[in-house]
Amino acid sequence: MKGIFITFEGPEGAGKTTIIKKLEKKLEKEGKDVVVTREPGGIVISEKIREIILHKEHTEMDARTEALLYAAARRQHLVEKVIPALHKGKIVLCDRFVDSSLAYQGYARGLGIQEVLEINQFAITGMMPNLTLFFDILPEKGLARITSNQNREINRLDLEKLDFHQKVYEGYKKIIEMFPNRIKVINADQPLEKVFFEAESALDLFWKETL
Amino acid sequence: MKGIFITFEGPEGAGKTTIIKKLEKKLEKEGKDVVVTREPGGIVISEKIREIILHKEHTEMDARTEALLYAAARRQHLVEKVIPALHKGKIVLCDRFVDSSLAYQGYARGLGIQEVLEINQFAITGMMPNLTLFFDILPEKGLARITSNQNREINRLDLEKLDFHQKVYEGYKKIIEMFPNRIKVINADQPLEKVFFEAESALDLFWKETL
Repeated sequence: MKGIFITFEGPEGAGKTTIIKKLEKKLEKEGKDVVVTREPGGIVISEKIREIILHKEHTEMDARTEALLYAAARRQHLVEKVIPALHKGKIVLCDRFVDSSLAYQGYARGLGIQEVLEINQFAITGMMPNLTLFFDILPEKGLARITSNQNREINRLDLEKLDFHQKVYEGYKKIIEMFPNRIKVINADQPLEKVFFEAESALDLFWKETL
Repeated sequence: MKGIFITFEGPEGAGKTTIIKKLEKKLEKEGKDVVVTREPGGIVISEKIREIILHKEHTEMDARTEALLYAAARRQHLVEKVIPALHKGKIVLCDRFVDSSLAYQGYARGLGIQEVLEINQFAITGMMPNLTLFFDILPEKGLARITSNQNREINRLDLEKLDFHQKVYEGYKKIIEMFPNRIKVINADQPLEKVFFEAESALDLFWKETL
């Protein structure tokens, strides 16, 4: 496969989406062919799965059902959108991927990181990202950013209690230890230009090391 | 858990549904508390997942997405219907369960029995059936029964080509080798009364051995 698969992870309000947009512009200026996506990514089957996951009346949904549904939606988005783009040699920037499931369902919901990794390995068949940028900010600070930003749409996960977001953060820290080569930590608790500079530098280093 | 969990497996047209009804009547006559079910079993979330799986326009669905969706629907049906019934000490008779995924997606669709077993183990968390009756009939004979029975509704799987059903049958034979203690083989290629007698005897033997 000729393309490069880069994912972006971190707590809510870490500024991932803004940085991804800036990186997209930068890479396109350099003449690179970039696809920006996030699950479910407009894939009909994945959108329908996501509707089931997020439906507000599905309060009886078991955590394992939820994890399997995320893995199913991930699989279809990967097969229909990410893999074809990589085959064409594109750079795919994906806002959240498998690490989110490990942190949210595996660790914060208590299903076990290793167990959730296994069902995701079934889903992704070895298509782990080439590089993952983790936007490191304490959850209370990330959440404060969200609530002060009137333009941002609040979703179901934003509304979980702070201790849930703290568990997600703890989970991410464990995942970073599991994949030290793939995941690069970006200090997201600083002004946007500095966060962008760190992300840019991490990408530059990655190109140098791998290309 | 006080109840007993019995599943019924076999090719299309093996006569499972008819035998389950007769067993239900027999067990109820004996004063036993019986629940007959099949996935998705009227569970709202599982019904919605099944709609996605069977939707005729979802031709782009990947086999792994399908296997994960079946596992998700199975989980929710298990949590909302099967486990509560077993906790109440009931006998649960379930038309198809995990072995169907192993035979259809694991073997016939080529994903691997062991791989599909692993995602199902995540879904069922050790809730394997206490007993499984496999209704053994060659797929061409089973299919001939279906097509001659005008009352039976033909589903998407019935319409797969014969070589697919032959692969499913081969898959079942491998699964029986993997679980010789749990799965009892019933000769389904004989008149209904004889099939019922064999199924009844397998149950009687199971009671003797375990209770």
